Amino acid sequence: MAQKQLGPIERLVAALRALPGVGQKTATRFAYFLLAAPESVSAELGAAILRLRSDVTLCEECFNLTEITPCAICADPQREAAVICVVEEPADLASIETAGFFRGRYHVLGGTLSPLDGVGPEALRIEPLVARVEKFGVQEVILATNPNPEGEATALFVAEQLETLSVSVTRIGYGMPIGGDLEYVDSVTVRKSLENRRQFGP
Amino acid sequence: MAQKQLGPIERLVAALRALPGVGQKTATRFAYFLLAAPESVSAELGAAILRLRSDVTLCEECFNLTEITPCAICADPQREAAVICVVEEPADLASIETAGFFRGRYHVLGGTLSPLDGVGPEALRIEPLVARVEKFGVQEVILATNPNPEGEATALFVAEQLETLSVSVTRIGYGMPIGGDLEYVDSVTVRKSLENRRQFGP
Repeated sequence: MAQKQLGPIERLVAALRALPGVGQKTATRFAYFLLAAPESVSAELGAAILRLRSDVTLCEECFNLTEITPCAICADPQREAAVICVVEEPADLASIETAGFFRGRYHVLGGTLSPLDGVGPEALRIEPLVARVEKFGVQEVILATNPNPEGEATALFVAEQLETLSVSVTRIGYGMPIGGDLEYVDSVTVRKSLENRRQFGP
Repeated sequence: MAQKQLGPIERLVAALRALPGVGQKTATRFAYFLLAAPESVSAELGAAILRLRSDVTLCEECFNLTEITPCAICADPQREAAVICVVEEPADLASIETAGFFRGRYHVLGGTLSPLDGVGPEALRIEPLVARVEKFGVQEVILATNPNPEGEATALFVAEQLETLSVSVTRIGYGMPIGGDLEYVDSVTVRKSLENRRQFGP
């Protein structure tokens, strides 16, 4: 096929195809929807996408995504500083917040250990977690990495790093379906898994 | 729940939910994807969405979406001006163009007759079609509205308006699955349906 300058519709379709799970047909459907919808719909969506990256930063305490650091959770004196829930990604944190009952704070690791992909302990925020536990006299660290092999290995590694400190290390209960993903599970299951947490360590 | 100012992520999720078939979970997935992807991905998508509406207009001849009017098809001397394919929407036109064999021109009606929704003949571009047929000595009008009750009724109405003119009016063949939608059908079926077109009229 001959190379040619993309028109505005083709350009948008190509850009939309970058989204996860969106192919040519879904992207085309989105594009024609945006053409037919009131202009305010596309204006708002375009502006929201462009402002996302400029307005969002990482919390210096917990590494959650936030507009101002420290984030609203870390800055909230009502949230127990003595309990830290460790998650892989900001989306996992959002899932637990949506469940709406956890009153402690968080620590976002930024992924899981994955030696085959070159992700070692230094790529995750494990040292800052250890520092927080020491600095704030944290009493419990709940390891809420996902219940799959990478999440388990990461939980075990983090538990080892905390072993010498006087902190209780727990793992979320297996109310969750094994192989599932915290980001997408329903709020009741999230809640059960946190309530059924148990002692954990090497 | 208390009303509060939306953060940039919530704002984007809310905007993404306007897209057809996108709920809270898919919108959240898209938002976190855009946060994690290289900044160029979200910059390109945001810009493409914002430029879409300012750069796209309607062709004064065929009412297709275009950057410059008349559109590339209407301005192309290689495309037969004597054959006009009448479609409901620009997406239908794009589907026929993707099939890549039709050498005539198009006319986009802008929908179908739908008395219950208040869409009468004056809301569609039927008069401009009749004017084009008269002005350019068009020999064949192919009615390629969708094979569902609204599309059939619209095709019949358009055929009636063209009855007094010396033009052959045809209907796309039923190679297409009945109840289907031109926008989403595969190219071979689109081609078959145009090849198998038949005489049509009241």
